[in-house]
Amino acid sequence: MRKVVLVYSGGLDTSVCIPMMKEFYSFDHVVTVTVDIGQPAEDIAEAEEKARALGTEHYTVDAKAEFVRNYVCPAIKANGNYQGYPLSTAIARPLIALKGVEVAEKVGADAFGHGCTGKGNDQFRIEFIMRALAPEKEIIAPMRERNLTRLEEIEYAKERDVPISQSVEKIWSVDENLWGRSIEGGRLEEPDYTPPEEIYLWTKGMNESPNEPEVVEIGFERGVPVSLNGESMGSLPLIQSLNRIAGNHGIGRVDVMEDRMLGLKVRENYECPAAVTLLMAHKALEALVCTKEEQKFKAMVDSQWSELAYYGLWFDPLKDDLEAFINKVQERVNGIVRLQLFKGHARVIGRSSDDALYSEELASFDTKVFDQREMTGAVKVHGLQSRMYWSLNRGK
Amino acid sequence: MRKVVLVYSGGLDTSVCIPMMKEFYSFDHVVTVTVDIGQPAEDIAEAEEKARALGTEHYTVDAKAEFVRNYVCPAIKANGNYQGYPLSTAIARPLIALKGVEVAEKVGADAFGHGCTGKGNDQFRIEFIMRALAPEKEIIAPMRERNLTRLEEIEYAKERDVPISQSVEKIWSVDENLWGRSIEGGRLEEPDYTPPEEIYLWTKGMNESPNEPEVVEIGFERGVPVSLNGESMGSLPLIQSLNRIAGNHGIGRVDVMEDRMLGLKVRENYECPAAVTLLMAHKALEALVCTKEEQKFKAMVDSQWSELAYYGLWFDPLKDDLEAFINKVQERVNGIVRLQLFKGHARVIGRSSDDALYSEELASFDTKVFDQREMTGAVKVHGLQSRMYWSLNRGK
Amino acid sequence: MRKVVLVYSGGLDTSVCIPMMKEFYSFDHVVTVTVDIGQPAEDIAEAEEKARALGTEHYTVDAKAEFVRNYVCPAIKANGNYQGYPLSTAIARPLIALKGVEVAEKVGADAFGHGCTGKGNDQFRIEFIMRALAPEKEIIAPMRERNLTRLEEIEYAKERDVPISQSVEKIWSVDENLWGRSIEGGRLEEPDYTPPEEIYLWTKGMNESPNEPEVVEIGFERGVPVSLNGESMGSLPLIQSLNRIAGNHGIGRVDVMEDRMLGLKVRENYECPAAVTLLMAHKALEALVCTKEEQKFKAMVDSQWSELAYYGLWFDPLKDDLEAFINKVQERVNGIVRLQLFKGHARVIGRSSDDALYSEELASFDTKVFDQREMTGAVKVHGLQSRMYWSLNRGK
Amino acid sequence: MRKVVLVYSGGLDTSVCIPMMKEFYSFDHVVTVTVDIGQPAEDIAEAEEKARALGTEHYTVDAKAEFVRNYVCPAIKANGNYQGYPLSTAIARPLIALKGVEVAEKVGADAFGHGCTGKGNDQFRIEFIMRALAPEKEIIAPMRERNLTRLEEIEYAKERDVPISQSVEKIWSVDENLWGRSIEGGRLEEPDYTPPEEIYLWTKGMNESPNEPEVVEIGFERGVPVSLNGESMGSLPLIQSLNRIAGNHGIGRVDVMEDRMLGLKVRENYECPAAVTLLMAHKALEALVCTKEEQKFKAMVDSQWSELAYYGLWFDPLKDDLEAFINKVQERVNGIVRLQLFKGHARVIGRSSDDALYSEELASFDTKVFDQREMTGAVKVHGLQSRMYWSLNRGK
Repeated sequence: MRKVVLVYSGGLDTSVCIPMMKEFYSFDHVVTVTVDIGQPAEDIAEAEEKARALGTEHYTVDAKAEFVRNYVCPAIKANGNYQGYPLSTAIARPLIALKGVEVAEKVGADAFGHGCTGKGNDQFRIEFIMRALAPEKEIIAPMRERNLTRLEEIEYAKERDVPISQSVEKIWSVDENLWGRSIEGGRLEEPDYTPPEEIYLWTKGMNESPNEPEVVEIGFERGVPVSLNGESMGSLPLIQSLNRIAGNHGIGRVDVMEDRMLGLKVRENYECPAAVTLLMAHKALEALVCTKEEQKFKAMVDSQWSELAYYGLWFDPLKDDLEAFINKVQERVNGIVRLQLFKGHARVIGRSSDDALYSEELASFDTKVFDQREMTGAVKVHGLQSRMYWSLNRGK
Repeated sequence: MRKVVLVYSGGLDTSVCIPMMKEFYSFDHVVTVTVDIGQPAEDIAEAEEKARALGTEHYTVDAKAEFVRNYVCPAIKANGNYQGYPLSTAIARPLIALKGVEVAEKVGADAFGHGCTGKGNDQFRIEFIMRALAPEKEIIAPMRERNLTRLEEIEYAKERDVPISQSVEKIWSVDENLWGRSIEGGRLEEPDYTPPEEIYLWTKGMNESPNEPEVVEIGFERGVPVSLNGESMGSLPLIQSLNRIAGNHGIGRVDVMEDRMLGLKVRENYECPAAVTLLMAHKALEALVCTKEEQKFKAMVDSQWSELAYYGLWFDPLKDDLEAFINKVQERVNGIVRLQLFKGHARVIGRSSDDALYSEELASFDTKVFDQREMTGAVKVHGLQSRMYWSLNRGK
Repeated sequence: MRKVVLVYSGGLDTSVCIPMMKEFYSFDHVVTVTVDIGQPAEDIAEAEEKARALGTEHYTVDAKAEFVRNYVCPAIKANGNYQGYPLSTAIARPLIALKGVEVAEKVGADAFGHGCTGKGNDQFRIEFIMRALAPEKEIIAPMRERNLTRLEEIEYAKERDVPISQSVEKIWSVDENLWGRSIEGGRLEEPDYTPPEEIYLWTKGMNESPNEPEVVEIGFERGVPVSLNGESMGSLPLIQSLNRIAGNHGIGRVDVMEDRMLGLKVRENYECPAAVTLLMAHKALEALVCTKEEQKFKAMVDSQWSELAYYGLWFDPLKDDLEAFINKVQERVNGIVRLQLFKGHARVIGRSSDDALYSEELASFDTKVFDQREMTGAVKVHGLQSRMYWSLNRGK
Repeated sequence: MRKVVLVYSGGLDTSVCIPMMKEFYSFDHVVTVTVDIGQPAEDIAEAEEKARALGTEHYTVDAKAEFVRNYVCPAIKANGNYQGYPLSTAIARPLIALKGVEVAEKVGADAFGHGCTGKGNDQFRIEFIMRALAPEKEIIAPMRERNLTRLEEIEYAKERDVPISQSVEKIWSVDENLWGRSIEGGRLEEPDYTPPEEIYLWTKGMNESPNEPEVVEIGFERGVPVSLNGESMGSLPLIQSLNRIAGNHGIGRVDVMEDRMLGLKVRENYECPAAVTLLMAHKALEALVCTKEEQKFKAMVDSQWSELAYYGLWFDPLKDDLEAFINKVQERVNGIVRLQLFKGHARVIGRSSDDALYSEELASFDTKVFDQREMTGAVKVHGLQSRMYWSLNRGK
């Protein structure tokens, strides 16, 4: 009996894969896996219901805590963003694939299936993990391999009685987890189209958000958020709370031109209230505890980390190396950041840390030894080589 | 007759330098130079009046156009910012020194004087230019060389009848030009002190700013802003308008921990409505016309440029090299960016360019040749080395 | 009538493509193009002869001067090397493709053909240019598309009377142009195999090379070599001479682990006497005329340039941007470098330049103003932030 | 009683400091510390003798093992070099200062003294450590503070009966430790002067070195050399052996233009047989076990580490962060590198490692799944954005 494990969101693409597995790939048995990483409960329920209707062996795996611990927290430490996008969807893909692999091992599957098309990033991210962890298993990508258009998909779904109820009239294609929400489709991909208010669900519009600013205090330990307004809490509930609080002020809308892995530019729209707020706070705390040169170098480290994360290369050795650097820095990223939330924008208004490279004591210590007159020599040698260059070239 | 040219703002530090030049440095003749780079007209008038009162030969030089052309526009092209600060004060210093040098040549001075202390960045920036352009002239820095405290300064000013009227009770030390306004002093330097509303003059508070968003369209040619809301205008009036428009919405408040050149961290507060808005728009346009790898590399170029600008190394050969790179990129930074201004925050909501690496035509051209099935191989080799690493190390 | 232009080396891979074009791809007319970039004259003659025998319309294009001017010289300016390899083969590929495109336009061809396999780098380099310059033409890659092994190739060649005389017993696969020679095949790809002396043709072994060192002086203008031992000459004859002179001393053997584009590591062996010598000399001259920060930053620019060149992305905008930077630097890369050549190794023993950021005059100018006592302050602030960090963390 | 600890080499500069400490700085008691980091035994003996003659309390500290463990090995892991110089002298300075601090704590000294001038790098390196570890103690730098010329020094030495026997006629100023030897002075600093053979003591000239190549095998564990020609040995004896073996073949001469910390370019000459050989071997091993992207990024990490080491910022937090990255990479830098030593040049001729990202098994595994035909799509999307750029700009 040939068995395939399909990572399953419940959406159109993955749903039509179910009958295809039997019809075109001759699997006898389809196992579906839905991974709960903070998407709406009704999405998970819908996936379960459809799986039942389509006769699969179904598993729902609650991976929220693992997602926060192993994916979101490293992203915070790395100030993870790719071209302005906090990587919300990108960093979820390896975990979804990982859970698929775990189920596949449990049920003794011969193959994996996924619903990604051949144009996007997710095929790279998901297959990388599958191939790394279970190189002996086949990978089936019906959307890509059958080169289907959306219309052909819907047609096929109708023929095979795949429930697609709401999917057809849905204009926007949405992907959600606790680190963010992406909205795609229709005219949204055009660079010059002002996105309509209706695409936003997590962030209030300017007219609806409170007319008074709200101040929040976020505490960090080793680069990870551990308290909100003075109350200790796990990173998971903290992120969930902050999504509500910051979203209420309309914070977290991200509108960027994004370069996909295959080289196509697409305009992307995201809502990431907690991510945007936490990344801002984390960076402000690093500015307090890190040296100038550390910040400059870490910007390159963070950028490289973010690219690897965007590419889904979760087990890449360079990623491990970069994280060794990042974690060393985070040993000192302890403290509290105060932000003002208001009308779509968070603003840092205060920060404190026992690890600050600023302290009244140190300042005064240095003031005591600081005789301004001694700086004359330092000023005199400033830019010595630049001046040599200038003196050689000014006549030219 | 020994003659000294003093770059002169009209503030306390530079004003006490005037009698000192005669008393401690035995100059017979003091020439003062005030450079107009967009600070308030009353500041310039005050400087002229004090110069008259203190008996110097005074020059006021209107350098606004030169400042925009040779300093602000290169900063826009380079997305110039140092740790979040748009470099407003920093890039003005070389120009002030340059104008001092020009006057010195005209009047045949033997020396330069400036009012910078021995603790800050400006001594490095100003003396670098003086030493590069007129290495044979002496440089006098009374504040640094006499290691004076502010109280001693005021004492001395009173003894020598230096007019300091408003200076004493002033809590904040302000520095202004058309690219931004910095506010220092008192508790503002503490990292955890929420700055009071009163320090802001260019940006409206959240309660006073309009309750309706405003949309602006900024046009760029070769990376330089050339139109506002469809109307062509020079960069100078454009920046002046945008300071008013964006400031009216409370946009441009910058609150950062800043690492000074000598290594001390200071919390700094700036207001830069036009700078913040233009830099955001410029970067959004680059995201439309530049490749992924160009953006990644230019981030390093911009960071290095910004550091050199912060250090005042205006004639550094590396700066010239970086600008060759930057200007090559800017050939394609043509187009229009649409932003929404509201309650302290600008947000890009659309962008268009004939140089976009996005176009329906290209997209469709690539769609035609794009057979999803052909991607299978590309996905298979994705992260090949990472997977080798993983397979070697997973047992460990 | 369907016409195809085949870029043609005369080797086995490209020779079997000729009958395949008719047999499998139904072209009526095959046009072969051999590009002379400094490979041995007998190789070119052999290609011409085979083309005649196989009945193609043949063109030999002398592109040596163009190769030096537009490919080798930019590589010198960029200190072009990828993981230690001077890019000899890599930078020739775009030019070969370009000449193919030019002939295709002239003869009105419908398609391109090439003999690259599906495993290597050359397919990426050659097709990139063809697709960029003539996107409407089809590209045929029989080796890749028919997934042939070498044995199957030879079998096919015999059946179709493709002359392969020497090719079968050849153990090594060699690729040559005036910038270097690569030797592949057999055990040479193993990381731990000591390559046998017989693979080297351009570089003498240690026992045969002269027992006396030889000194050469290479003059550069704007980063390009323009004289040898005081005699002005074009870059082309200079490189040809230097290949003989340095090769005679056994200089230019390069033995590296190389990461191919698809991620496979291969051990590679090259002989590049002129390239190794010129790159060493060029870098030594840059060290004399560039500031410390320029050298540090240019190392990143050069590394990025080399990667793009290795990838064959000759028309990439980032490459243009990087070259703007590089060319700005090269304005000052004028001067003479003296090297000692001996027993497999070149060693810089002197360098001089009017653009040196070193000069007795400047040195003494700076000595005059240099009062050692003034350095005390500069030393005191050295590493201020590092010391703060240490004082905060030493107790931990 | 005021006590000063003087870090003491026994040379002229530090010797004249001894009477100065009493005469100009009114110390009652001078403690001298000579740190053995592998310089010749007679230099240490001479220092001890002079100290006795000048009546100091003297300590000789054997720090060779500590030098190798905490300074040289990290430098190997980081491929430590600054502009081609293996940092031999630079990385010894922090250790010398550290030993000075330890003795100062033991003897209860009030101050440190050193013999560095105000022009060089060593004052920065040594004082940084002293100030970081014992910020409360005064630092005395007589050479700098008295702005002495060499002639004035010698005059003073004679007057005070400071034994300077050999020092006067010495043309070259030499500094040695087990990681290398530097030779300065006279015409050696001129960029275009061919250094005379007599300055080299550790490396044989081309005529004297063996006429037969010698092959050595160096084993590494976690980036550190642990065996020579198959024999396990500690890094210290291994380095000492390799200095002899490689030096015998004339390997290790380094001749570079070096940018000093204050911005002056100086031509420097070094002999570092073990350093040059080990760094070459280490890098070759990294090329075998690291991914392409790791090598590219580590080049930046190594360059930054080397700069910090050159600057003497041994306790810098960024250095700790970089070493976290480096040490993570080194976990896999295990294996053996085979080099051929001959006539001034080492050449890698083989490398092997269980951590190689190359293995026949993996290669064949990948060959099996490697259907060349699948690459067509990957080739088609190669450089997609570059081609868009080209198609937009070709008409311009």
